[in-house]
Amino acid sequence: MKEIEIDEVATPELDDPVLIEGLPGVGHVGKLAAEHLVEEGDSTLVRRLYTTEFPPQVTVDDEGVAELTCAEFHAVETEGEDLLVLTGDHQAASNDGHYKLTSAFLDVAEAFGADRAFALGGVPTGELVEEYTVLGAINDADMRADLEDVGVEFRADEPAGGIVGVSGLVLGLGDRRGFDAACMMGETSGYLVDPKSARAVLEVLEDLLDFEVDFGTLEERAEEMEEVAGKIQEMQEGPSVSEDELRYIG
Amino acid sequence: MKEIEIDEVATPELDDPVLIEGLPGVGHVGKLAAEHLVEEGDSTLVRRLYTTEFPPQVTVDDEGVAELTCAEFHAVETEGEDLLVLTGDHQAASNDGHYKLTSAFLDVAEAFGADRAFALGGVPTGELVEEYTVLGAINDADMRADLEDVGVEFRADEPAGGIVGVSGLVLGLGDRRGFDAACMMGETSGYLVDPKSARAVLEVLEDLLDFEVDFGTLEERAEEMEEVAGKIQEMQEGPSVSEDELRYIG
Amino acid sequence: MKEIEIDEVATPELDDPVLIEGLPGVGHVGKLAAEHLVEEGDSTLVRRLYTTEFPPQVTVDDEGVAELTCAEFHAVETEGEDLLVLTGDHQAASNDGHYKLTSAFLDVAEAFGADRAFALGGVPTGELVEEYTVLGAINDADMRADLEDVGVEFRADEPAGGIVGVSGLVLGLGDRRGFDAACMMGETSGYLVDPKSARAVLEVLEDLLDFEVDFGTLEERAEEMEEVAGKIQEMQEGPSVSEDELRYIG
Amino acid sequence: MKEIEIDEVATPELDDPVLIEGLPGVGHVGKLAAEHLVEEGDSTLVRRLYTTEFPPQVTVDDEGVAELTCAEFHAVETEGEDLLVLTGDHQAASNDGHYKLTSAFLDVAEAFGADRAFALGGVPTGELVEEYTVLGAINDADMRADLEDVGVEFRADEPAGGIVGVSGLVLGLGDRRGFDAACMMGETSGYLVDPKSARAVLEVLEDLLDFEVDFGTLEERAEEMEEVAGKIQEMQEGPSVSEDELRYIG
Repeated sequence: MKEIEIDEVATPELDDPVLIEGLPGVGHVGKLAAEHLVEEGDSTLVRRLYTTEFPPQVTVDDEGVAELTCAEFHAVETEGEDLLVLTGDHQAASNDGHYKLTSAFLDVAEAFGADRAFALGGVPTGELVEEYTVLGAINDADMRADLEDVGVEFRADEPAGGIVGVSGLVLGLGDRRGFDAACMMGETSGYLVDPKSARAVLEVLEDLLDFEVDFGTLEERAEEMEEVAGKIQEMQEGPSVSEDELRYIG
Repeated sequence: MKEIEIDEVATPELDDPVLIEGLPGVGHVGKLAAEHLVEEGDSTLVRRLYTTEFPPQVTVDDEGVAELTCAEFHAVETEGEDLLVLTGDHQAASNDGHYKLTSAFLDVAEAFGADRAFALGGVPTGELVEEYTVLGAINDADMRADLEDVGVEFRADEPAGGIVGVSGLVLGLGDRRGFDAACMMGETSGYLVDPKSARAVLEVLEDLLDFEVDFGTLEERAEEMEEVAGKIQEMQEGPSVSEDELRYIG
Repeated sequence: MKEIEIDEVATPELDDPVLIEGLPGVGHVGKLAAEHLVEEGDSTLVRRLYTTEFPPQVTVDDEGVAELTCAEFHAVETEGEDLLVLTGDHQAASNDGHYKLTSAFLDVAEAFGADRAFALGGVPTGELVEEYTVLGAINDADMRADLEDVGVEFRADEPAGGIVGVSGLVLGLGDRRGFDAACMMGETSGYLVDPKSARAVLEVLEDLLDFEVDFGTLEERAEEMEEVAGKIQEMQEGPSVSEDELRYIG
Repeated sequence: MKEIEIDEVATPELDDPVLIEGLPGVGHVGKLAAEHLVEEGDSTLVRRLYTTEFPPQVTVDDEGVAELTCAEFHAVETEGEDLLVLTGDHQAASNDGHYKLTSAFLDVAEAFGADRAFALGGVPTGELVEEYTVLGAINDADMRADLEDVGVEFRADEPAGGIVGVSGLVLGLGDRRGFDAACMMGETSGYLVDPKSARAVLEVLEDLLDFEVDFGTLEERAEEMEEVAGKIQEMQEGPSVSEDELRYIG
């Protein structure tokens, strides 16, 4: 097997599509948002990307059939812009791998005619979030006004540690090859999988790219998580759960 | 030394052989099962595979003679199907290495004419096992009926974390190059080397591939382990052995 | 992306320039010193070096614009010698990467005509420093007298553990390709970012290369750090802060 | 810099020399023994080997001059056989690196006409050693009698965990390219640098290869270590030093 292998599943004609990246990260916000787009939208699986940077692993489905772990691109046609949505269960295993993988992702997007990209993710606040602000970062100062128009907030030098992983490189490497790219990060406690933060990110994206998506299933998931959070809060008020333990839930 | 070097020891004519993989893993179930096939069957060492992915290590035999660590393929002729059994003391050291190594293993199998593979392993239950169920995963839905006929169980989305390592990739990479492959995982506590679970896996394999193997030595080993387990249980009922300590025995 | 990519930003004519390296390390002494030279001197950004050895990361500036993490070379013209100053936020991620990166840094310096290099850094003393001695190491015995003339101290076999990272390799690899190189290490506690130690290193460099730099901003920073150190000392005299906690501040 | 670079320092004519390997390991037995041969014998530095597998590091000598970390080969002429002695401060940083490095070491030895090799090392006993037995392992059963004649002991399947690192590969890779190679392991507690164990290994080597070496400096060093060991024993009889602390001395 080569370092990266890409299976061509379908190649629909897309009209100046926008790359939407949603791989695992803080609160799984980006992953939840991107998967929700694929599940609720008019989507077609177009590419599978296998790589030796992913764990040597298969997942097993409800029929017992194993699938080699991969990242997937779906074309999602909306009433607004065409989307090319990247989802998957893993980031790369090494520094080097992150660079190679993101380059390959941008290659695929470019081949479909994309020259814009949105990296979706979460930004940890360390406390339970009441209002889900979406924080932005861009790789071209000209993009800022449009993002602020739909409610994205910009704060000087935030996030303080920069943006790490594929999302960061979609901006950084994207810039080096001519992509206008932004990262949209939903605020989230950082302790729990956060469907509400994913919704906040998607709402901003809807406004920006002029499409609509149903949030039913994401709301259900949010309610489930709320119950979990409720139980945790009860436990916190009790004597025995430390912040450290909380950190590793979800 | 190249990344992977394969020594050709013998090249008997095999009739549509089945690759049987049994490298170290949970409860050493796969390794015990595959080694038992080699020891008890009519077996011939056919290939040694050396790789820089294995630890830089020699083992020392009872005469003080050192052997460079390697994986071995034995041809095992049975009254049913011909087997090509892969055994060894190590998995790869890196993600990347797992992919390369499994590719090389499948190359060898292919060169002997194999297009079916069974990856043997264990699945941890976290508690002492009374009845040794064998759990299955397949890379082609058509294989399921035959496996169920010999008692292999399929449970939706299990094992939950997927299958990791060479066994997982025998299914995943095997699928990408035309192998019908299944993983047969004996239930095992996960705390101890488990010859009984290895036997359960082999019994299923016997029925499926129509051969018989004597279980004498595996039974002896099982009895030894039973004594160990007994002592541990005594200790558990005593005051001082924690579950954590148990986890690292065997 | 290639392993190392170098963007040519400007290529001023430099007169036998001296490479000054100041990447992160003990007390951030080298980094502070080199950045101070760039900020206070008559400096021009000449090269940006991107590498897959750096974390997959962008930094976000005060406008929300992301920049791919990189190392930078600035030409700094002084009334004495021309300087080529190397700064950045990271060292390499692997042994191998340190060698490759330092080779690339020396390539850039060589292309500008440099055949001398000074690696700036800190040497930990484990206690708060009163007088900021600058310790030296050289890759050619002939350099010693000049350095001693400006106050650099040489102590047999110090630093005891040798010099690790890019600074060490600027000497070691530099020697193998004809660079006269020295490392100048300001004594520093090792617990805190240390602008005073950076100043001590720069003062030695001023004398050696015959230029002057204003220390205003470095003094301000030193005062800030002094406050931090003061608070820490108070806390130390109180009951609860261990040395371990101190070690990770700054 | 290439992955491995070898500097040719001198190329004396050697008569069927024997490779003696003594890199760092248990109790530094092999390293002490090999360095002692170089220091006390009629030795000439013949090769320096630099590699990106070693830490990115220079050592600083008593004049403040830095040397890039490397492994060295010395030709040592004795009244018996000619020796080619390999010493250094590091093993490789990765599995892969151990294989590449040992291959390169054997290349050098082969170029000098060697086809025999002795890997010197220590084997940990876990307790203070009274009598310094030297344990052997070979890569060819025919070597055993000669080694037993000079007092080397062979114990079935020992060392239990095999032999790891360059020493192991000198046997394992050596065998694959026609070297007769043995590992001679002095028993040692495993807690302390052990010059006495190094002497035991050298005495066996003297008898085998028919040369003599003065043990004066090694005895001094042994006495120093004895004092250290004495102090530690006192401390052990006192209330506060745990075995864990001991393990990291030396």
